[in-house]
Amino acid sequence: MNLYSYFRSSASWRVRIALALKNLPCQYHGVHLVRGEQLTHAQLGAAHLLPALWVGSERITQSLAILEYLEEAHPTPALLPQDPFERAYVRSLALDIACEIHPLNNLRVLKYLKAELAVDEEAKNAWYRHWVEAGLAVVEERLRTEGRSGRFCLGDTPGMADCVLVPQVFNAQRFAARIDHLSAVLAVFEACMALPAFAQTHPSQVPDAE
Amino acid sequence: MNLYSYFRSSASWRVRIALALKNLPCQYHGVHLVRGEQLTHAQLGAAHLLPALWVGSERITQSLAILEYLEEAHPTPALLPQDPFERAYVRSLALDIACEIHPLNNLRVLKYLKAELAVDEEAKNAWYRHWVEAGLAVVEERLRTEGRSGRFCLGDTPGMADCVLVPQVFNAQRFAARIDHLSAVLAVFEACMALPAFAQTHPSQVPDAE
Repeated sequence: MNLYSYFRSSASWRVRIALALKNLPCQYHGVHLVRGEQLTHAQLGAAHLLPALWVGSERITQSLAILEYLEEAHPTPALLPQDPFERAYVRSLALDIACEIHPLNNLRVLKYLKAELAVDEEAKNAWYRHWVEAGLAVVEERLRTEGRSGRFCLGDTPGMADCVLVPQVFNAQRFAARIDHLSAVLAVFEACMALPAFAQTHPSQVPDAE
Repeated sequence: MNLYSYFRSSASWRVRIALALKNLPCQYHGVHLVRGEQLTHAQLGAAHLLPALWVGSERITQSLAILEYLEEAHPTPALLPQDPFERAYVRSLALDIACEIHPLNNLRVLKYLKAELAVDEEAKNAWYRHWVEAGLAVVEERLRTEGRSGRFCLGDTPGMADCVLVPQVFNAQRFAARIDHLSAVLAVFEACMALPAFAQTHPSQVPDAE
């Protein structure tokens, strides 16, 4: 397998974690998004978004579709539990982040705010923090009230929701979002970062890190 | 099952289509988002977003997690194909819409633009159209170039990607986005709307329609 990734892309990091949790060998290719570095259309697909995973001659885009593929093709260790409602819980937590937080804070969205709406740096950062703070507060409440979390988002085994949560918390900290009070989220983050699959795929640890 | 939905919510419509394609009986509950109508916290979950599907005493949130649940619990007729790369294609198309278009055009985001960034009506509508036009252009290119589409997003059977595409096209038309040139997208939309599962769950056809 070949992964096209950008060290700081949180969607790319989700996939790096899943590959590491499953001990799957994969060739890493760093693509510098901020410099506007372009791979060929074929490498990244129509959306030109990262990550893209190549499996032989097949290209898979969208990080959550990649995670589902990896889970089905390489079921052990599992990123999803067996129980149907626990599966739905894990997927919905992942989507609470992947659909409600991350898309609003994408590089291309921040660029639009600046270029098209003349939003200044302070208001842009406030936008960023608003969505990450509101979104992670939802995750916090779910971890606290739904009775399914343990050391990780679901019980004591890291899984798909943790793959998505950890890069988002990293982003929140990078932009100085106020999340110190989200103690359940931060406890899961710390438990994850104690594992090699998370620590060794951290943006600072990959080949294209700066 | 009980579905909490808002007639105009495209995420709710995704689930209505899936339930209809699978012929699953479900009690419909309309919740008026724009009027700020609130159900109890328990009914909608921490995020207070629609849709929420109740299966007995279990609440499932996030439309794509609901679709995956329905697919696993009620596999026939299938919303996902068997081939692993075709599954990834369908899921990634669904996510191209659910992650790259829809979150940017959510009601709460439009409210933030207006209230916090003082964006006027014209610029707000331009924002809306920008993301839907750019995002659906990606879908168009994928339908045209990846060799997997037919009458529907994948071959000649409606599935998960169609459940997500159709409500987004409806939104695009409602906001007068320029998508007339996206002939592959529009052909799939028309093919879907010719089916009762899509037509009978259209926002104008549900109990809370206005």
